[in-house]
Amino acid sequence: MIKVGIYGASGYTGQELLRLLLRHPMAEVVFATSRRFAGKAVFEAHPSLIGLTDLRFLDAPAEDVAQSADVVFLALPHGTSMEIAPVFYKAGRKVIDLSADYRLSDLGTYEQWYGRHASPEVIPAAVYGIPELWRERIREARFIANPGCYPTSVILGLAPIVGSDWLDRSSIVIDSKSGTSGAGREPQMGSLFCEVDEGFKAYKVGGQHRHIPEMEQALSGLAGERITISFTPHLLPVSRGILSTIYVNMTRSLKIDDLLDVYGKFYRNEAFVRVYPKGMSPNLLSIRGTNYCDIGLSIDVRTQRAIIVSVIDNLVKGAAGQAIQNMNLICGLPEDAGLGMVPLFP
Amino acid sequence: MIKVGIYGASGYTGQELLRLLLRHPMAEVVFATSRRFAGKAVFEAHPSLIGLTDLRFLDAPAEDVAQSADVVFLALPHGTSMEIAPVFYKAGRKVIDLSADYRLSDLGTYEQWYGRHASPEVIPAAVYGIPELWRERIREARFIANPGCYPTSVILGLAPIVGSDWLDRSSIVIDSKSGTSGAGREPQMGSLFCEVDEGFKAYKVGGQHRHIPEMEQALSGLAGERITISFTPHLLPVSRGILSTIYVNMTRSLKIDDLLDVYGKFYRNEAFVRVYPKGMSPNLLSIRGTNYCDIGLSIDVRTQRAIIVSVIDNLVKGAAGQAIQNMNLICGLPEDAGLGMVPLFP
Amino acid sequence: MIKVGIYGASGYTGQELLRLLLRHPMAEVVFATSRRFAGKAVFEAHPSLIGLTDLRFLDAPAEDVAQSADVVFLALPHGTSMEIAPVFYKAGRKVIDLSADYRLSDLGTYEQWYGRHASPEVIPAAVYGIPELWRERIREARFIANPGCYPTSVILGLAPIVGSDWLDRSSIVIDSKSGTSGAGREPQMGSLFCEVDEGFKAYKVGGQHRHIPEMEQALSGLAGERITISFTPHLLPVSRGILSTIYVNMTRSLKIDDLLDVYGKFYRNEAFVRVYPKGMSPNLLSIRGTNYCDIGLSIDVRTQRAIIVSVIDNLVKGAAGQAIQNMNLICGLPEDAGLGMVPLFP
Amino acid sequence: MIKVGIYGASGYTGQELLRLLLRHPMAEVVFATSRRFAGKAVFEAHPSLIGLTDLRFLDAPAEDVAQSADVVFLALPHGTSMEIAPVFYKAGRKVIDLSADYRLSDLGTYEQWYGRHASPEVIPAAVYGIPELWRERIREARFIANPGCYPTSVILGLAPIVGSDWLDRSSIVIDSKSGTSGAGREPQMGSLFCEVDEGFKAYKVGGQHRHIPEMEQALSGLAGERITISFTPHLLPVSRGILSTIYVNMTRSLKIDDLLDVYGKFYRNEAFVRVYPKGMSPNLLSIRGTNYCDIGLSIDVRTQRAIIVSVIDNLVKGAAGQAIQNMNLICGLPEDAGLGMVPLFP
Repeated sequence: MIKVGIYGASGYTGQELLRLLLRHPMAEVVFATSRRFAGKAVFEAHPSLIGLTDLRFLDAPAEDVAQSADVVFLALPHGTSMEIAPVFYKAGRKVIDLSADYRLSDLGTYEQWYGRHASPEVIPAAVYGIPELWRERIREARFIANPGCYPTSVILGLAPIVGSDWLDRSSIVIDSKSGTSGAGREPQMGSLFCEVDEGFKAYKVGGQHRHIPEMEQALSGLAGERITISFTPHLLPVSRGILSTIYVNMTRSLKIDDLLDVYGKFYRNEAFVRVYPKGMSPNLLSIRGTNYCDIGLSIDVRTQRAIIVSVIDNLVKGAAGQAIQNMNLICGLPEDAGLGMVPLFP
Repeated sequence: MIKVGIYGASGYTGQELLRLLLRHPMAEVVFATSRRFAGKAVFEAHPSLIGLTDLRFLDAPAEDVAQSADVVFLALPHGTSMEIAPVFYKAGRKVIDLSADYRLSDLGTYEQWYGRHASPEVIPAAVYGIPELWRERIREARFIANPGCYPTSVILGLAPIVGSDWLDRSSIVIDSKSGTSGAGREPQMGSLFCEVDEGFKAYKVGGQHRHIPEMEQALSGLAGERITISFTPHLLPVSRGILSTIYVNMTRSLKIDDLLDVYGKFYRNEAFVRVYPKGMSPNLLSIRGTNYCDIGLSIDVRTQRAIIVSVIDNLVKGAAGQAIQNMNLICGLPEDAGLGMVPLFP
Repeated sequence: MIKVGIYGASGYTGQELLRLLLRHPMAEVVFATSRRFAGKAVFEAHPSLIGLTDLRFLDAPAEDVAQSADVVFLALPHGTSMEIAPVFYKAGRKVIDLSADYRLSDLGTYEQWYGRHASPEVIPAAVYGIPELWRERIREARFIANPGCYPTSVILGLAPIVGSDWLDRSSIVIDSKSGTSGAGREPQMGSLFCEVDEGFKAYKVGGQHRHIPEMEQALSGLAGERITISFTPHLLPVSRGILSTIYVNMTRSLKIDDLLDVYGKFYRNEAFVRVYPKGMSPNLLSIRGTNYCDIGLSIDVRTQRAIIVSVIDNLVKGAAGQAIQNMNLICGLPEDAGLGMVPLFP
Repeated sequence: MIKVGIYGASGYTGQELLRLLLRHPMAEVVFATSRRFAGKAVFEAHPSLIGLTDLRFLDAPAEDVAQSADVVFLALPHGTSMEIAPVFYKAGRKVIDLSADYRLSDLGTYEQWYGRHASPEVIPAAVYGIPELWRERIREARFIANPGCYPTSVILGLAPIVGSDWLDRSSIVIDSKSGTSGAGREPQMGSLFCEVDEGFKAYKVGGQHRHIPEMEQALSGLAGERITISFTPHLLPVSRGILSTIYVNMTRSLKIDDLLDVYGKFYRNEAFVRVYPKGMSPNLLSIRGTNYCDIGLSIDVRTQRAIIVSVIDNLVKGAAGQAIQNMNLICGLPEDAGLGMVPLFP
């Protein structure tokens, strides 16, 4: 059994790591930390886990727990992770960081979007962890920068075509919609039930969301040239899920069957990407609670645009599930171990 | 008092007409029809109206009720309206048709998207009813084609700039999201609570939605040249509201203050359009139950795109409210009579 | 025009007072206070009110604003209101306090459930404000203790029968369910969207909710004898509304028609209570945004129990609407002035 | 591997059986029937299962498929099941019927509440399947009447105390609230999103719900005397889950610790019942997607009542999960095989 620690386990991502790891056949959670719930039973923060674990939250310095786990997940806000991750990494642990702190390989870009970085020396060790795209590099890594939720949906949605010769790479418009768990569990007015329920809004409109450089870095790498995107996030009145609607101009007319064929081949051997047949469009309800990324494809012949709809569960493929998929890879386990969930519908 | 009849009053649009007209200071509902609820009290279909009206639903041929009202609202599906509207129109009534049947001035376009038209001879009499844009023509009309919900949000969102010299008119991408009441009250699996709640999906992706020609007709008219748009509708797990996120390429860099200025001037005297100050983005919750169209503006300097976010309540400004605004105009009443609702939040 | 001030106007109750008062034909809001939003425009806290008012929030001591309004609404938490209300009252203003601080006439009971009272000398001046039951006393009052949301639904539901000879007054079981706005707008984990959405729970089970003494005081007064109730509140995943299901044992068999008759007569002249015909059961959706209390009645002949279902909008009849109804009474205005809202459905 | 057939697999219960059985380590679904979706791939009715099964829906007479499965689940409406179940039973299959048709052992009671029974001769073979209460009888059965959703929550909630000497058995009041999936997947106006969302209502008030005789039969059996209950169901705006709040009078004062002790001992060895510690109250969100029944206990010393709150997922412990638990028992498999789901929160 792999021994696993979760640093920052009282939020939604921490809870989701626990939900999945408690049923992982080859991993065992040995510690879970929380400042707010220090000393309390895990079920006091996560009542759904009552009876499923005897763990209590620690509020321990990273140094004190660094030896007890083989793999440490950091479910911390950006800015905090950069203080903690190096301790585990330098202690020889395998580290999977779910914050944004190590996702951008260019320090200047990081500091432009997020502010000063406290441990830039560790950035080069971090491998950006979308297994479907960079599986081999992940396998050899000891430090994973787990991707953001929006970026996972967008990068998987565009990867098969972003380098195609028929794609106008200056035309990419991404309209994304996220469930509210993406805003985290810290009490704030904008996340209250009454502020979200029956509502819907765009936010950080006009190229302001911090996930933009992460998407551009990955897409540029895949395309082999610098790509700039328009990205607009929206807040959905649902708990889980991200749906990204992606618009690209085609410089020549592609047939829908050809587009389906490109995606079908690209993801042929992937357990967690489901490319939909013609005419079907994915719904958040079809991937809830699972590690799937579902992709639907259309072509608007009137305007010569391709439209890609990509959905994930932001807490699973967009966070905890992909983190475990990465753990499986860096620990030499079957990539899908502990990730065999069937979507919960309705 | 203006005498008003509602033909097809048991659905959501019919209900909304009743909700608003029951408090209209200068109008009185004299009949409401429904096949399904014929003979029953209005509150049996609309329990919220218990105690507010003694009306019973009729199931009467148009001929029989044509004389009893000054104005008739048709809240019928397309295809049905075209059979009924001519009866009222030819009987000299003022007619406000909320279906799609008379919105397209070109018969060929109508038949291409909707199928055969049963009363093409009446089409030329119909005036497309967005008062903010075509107030004078509406005032003189006796037959209003009340706009669709998606088109209202999109046309008001683009009207101030669609003819601008800095706008790349081939670049318009519209990503719209609608509440479920837009699907009507007919029982169908896709509208069940369990199929919508916690879900989100795109539908009719790839230029297939029937509101496209209506938007293109209006936008082309405003711009003075033929415009083709990309339009993708999505289904939101809320009852009411449409939010359209509209992306346009700019051929030269506009400043956000200039854009705000253009919209501010364009809608300066409009009671029902609220242009937001810089940095504010509209939310469905801010217009619920009202006739407002709220518009937020942003510029993405990285990609030289303007992003317009336009929200309406699909049942009010997108249907019954705008219909009453049109009624006020064609009856010579104050345009905002009966439409002074303050948004319901939360 | 009556000049109205709102002390504590940035929460949900304050917002609801603004929503209703902005359309009140005989009242004008002259000030609104908020510590958190001091100096900001009202629309910064309440975006739905953008364009509807030019007011800015003050953070002014009660002393400073006491002279500027004829009537002051206090939308403050209990414990705070007791410090502020006496200032306005002693300055000769009409005061409508929406907190719990002056609802209990017995100081000992107050201090047992809520803690120490800072201004017990004002308690005797306060009149408990359910107009349907104590209209005349309210008319003559200058200080209204506006009832709690749960109590309003329960007291109106039981008032017609609580003194009946066929009622077993020891058998009253009240199972109430409230929307989340009842928890207020202060950020707290339990009110986050993800903690409420798709959830449902009981809370303060076992006779622990602070609204119990308020209900028992009113019901005992109506019955002329000491009544003890079982009351269990639940949290509903909706923004607005309270539904109370009330069970009482009958010492002899009553017919449903007789029960309907009792309620029908009791509320015959009431504008804001709608007693449903046999077989209809009220829904939160039927009173949303309005000052109605809707009541449905049933008899379970198998167990000789009567079941009363009573629904209100907690922010309207359960707070701001009833407060305005009280204002109308103490100011000599028509009782329903500014309260003619039709329910918003769906 | 046990070969399993599902008769009536396109609704929510059928879908839930598929969701769970597709991951059951010792069972394999060999057929799934549906009239509406006959010939279509399972994912056309259940898009969430795309890629997880190659099954197509059959529309086959029971006779034709009776030989192909070891166990047949019937997920049919009452009235239909009674025509189909005997075919499978008489062909020697193990049958688990999820309808109400075989739950009542007394034919007269059945016909009083449901209408004429087409196969009364099979009733005596049916064993009512709540494993926690009647495990040994279930193990020996070949025909299981799978309990209703409301009854499962209520019977498990009351079983430990319904026969206690301190319980006033005439005082039982049950206030239950169910998610909308309980209404099934057949399109009907009352189940539309817009009719349920933001709403809440009681229905079949006054002892009219057909689950009453089922609860009374089980509770009477457990208590050893005839019990009559008050039961009021309500419709919650959530997809999944039932919460029952149960009130009972105590003839002498019990301490909460004693009550906790009774339940703790009663369910000590049960994998799927979680009795909560003092002060915790269960939430639908804590059992979503799982086979748990969570129980919270309180005592109202002011009124000498015990209050039991019992929650289940209506589609799992209230239907498909309990059915599989029963299958495991009658097939000699570990009782929890395939039922190790962790709750999905948020």
